[in-house]
Amino acid sequence: MSVFLVGAGPGCADLLTLRAARLLATADVVVYDRLISDEVLALAPETAELIDVGKRPGGSHNQALINDLLVSLGQRYDRVVRIKGGDPFVFGRGGEERDALEAAGISVEIVPGVTSAFAAPLAAGIPVTHRGVARGVCVITGHTMGDDAVDYAALANDQITLVVLMGVGNRASIASQLIQGGLSASTPVAAIESASTPQQRIVRCQLDDLGDTAISNPAVLVIGAVAAHGHDNASLLHHSHLPCFP
Amino acid sequence: MSVFLVGAGPGCADLLTLRAARLLATADVVVYDRLISDEVLALAPETAELIDVGKRPGGSHNQALINDLLVSLGQRYDRVVRIKGGDPFVFGRGGEERDALEAAGISVEIVPGVTSAFAAPLAAGIPVTHRGVARGVCVITGHTMGDDAVDYAALANDQITLVVLMGVGNRASIASQLIQGGLSASTPVAAIESASTPQQRIVRCQLDDLGDTAISNPAVLVIGAVAAHGHDNASLLHHSHLPCFP
Repeated sequence: MSVFLVGAGPGCADLLTLRAARLLATADVVVYDRLISDEVLALAPETAELIDVGKRPGGSHNQALINDLLVSLGQRYDRVVRIKGGDPFVFGRGGEERDALEAAGISVEIVPGVTSAFAAPLAAGIPVTHRGVARGVCVITGHTMGDDAVDYAALANDQITLVVLMGVGNRASIASQLIQGGLSASTPVAAIESASTPQQRIVRCQLDDLGDTAISNPAVLVIGAVAAHGHDNASLLHHSHLPCFP
Repeated sequence: MSVFLVGAGPGCADLLTLRAARLLATADVVVYDRLISDEVLALAPETAELIDVGKRPGGSHNQALINDLLVSLGQRYDRVVRIKGGDPFVFGRGGEERDALEAAGISVEIVPGVTSAFAAPLAAGIPVTHRGVARGVCVITGHTMGDDAVDYAALANDQITLVVLMGVGNRASIASQLIQGGLSASTPVAAIESASTPQQRIVRCQLDDLGDTAISNPAVLVIGAVAAHGHDNASLLHHSHLPCFP
């Protein structure tokens, strides 16, 4: 009786790890989010039960309900695979699910995945670190505001690439806080829309234009000198001779 | 004629992506680093040429020579796989290799991998982000000092988990800079030695003891409240019922 919290990577099915594919192939139940594609779910046996807990805006599934569901499934089934986009421990709330399962005495295994925070920039040809350009990379979310807000001004650092997930809605505020914090108004920005899907599109601007630049959700924002690298038309995750699995 | 810059993930062969495994299986030449295991190389055809460019301390392979080698191989072979630990664009110098290949007119494809920066904490059961504990994560290297040094004091931020790669040698200096920058002396630290190998070992301390705590290379340092999470004995990447591939 084990629950596996498994990262599915950025979207394309052949960017699953071998371990994730093998676990899916032997699952009794698969619990999945809305970012998980049909190609990924097709790796599960036909007999496996598939449960969609995708959190939609205004939808009914909250994290506490998902935790309870996983505990309940973990008590009833031999092999539960909880699969989520990216990596379970990088903005995946895997820590909360792990804690709930362990509190209920259920064995948990975490399987890392390719995080979308780095795969999205890569899909635009952008290395998040680059010698002489970026000595590190910081990943944050942009959707928390108010009392729970990230202090973006404190993250202004021209040595470090900033990757912002779920930041499209608050991009004007994020940009102005970063500029107040000391980041140059001309810092390059790249927005990668629908990374690793056929709809992928790259939008580039500079930091002080970010608020006025049209960007569609979902998108990952890359802020820093490296954002000027890469190619607008290089959809590296969907290149001609590397079609999506199989 | 293509060169593929491919991430191998944190070490265990079954944490390769399906795409990486397929590319290896069809490679004419494989150029690899010293962190790549024999199990990974065994995925290449018997006929493939294997070239070790592992950078050892004081060794003879420098990045410019590797770039030249890749260009030369890319001109002679149909399918060159350059495989490296973790992700090619996260401290993998993949950006430099890509630029050199493109400058020579050679087609380049980048394939992301599971970054060791996140897989090492995961192997210790540590989620790098966790609701109410860490709102983001910053990844930096600790091996650059002198004029090229990272300003660690500027990275002191109790909202953000700090992951330091190659920082064992400079850990005393890094800790004191972070404390000067405002991070609490009692901030939890976890060092994951030889993550994702049978030698994996987790060492825990607090920030002001980091310099005096014995830590063996290679190790990843995790600094922040999340470092108090997880289990010392949970070698999650080498769990009993999930042996390393195959």
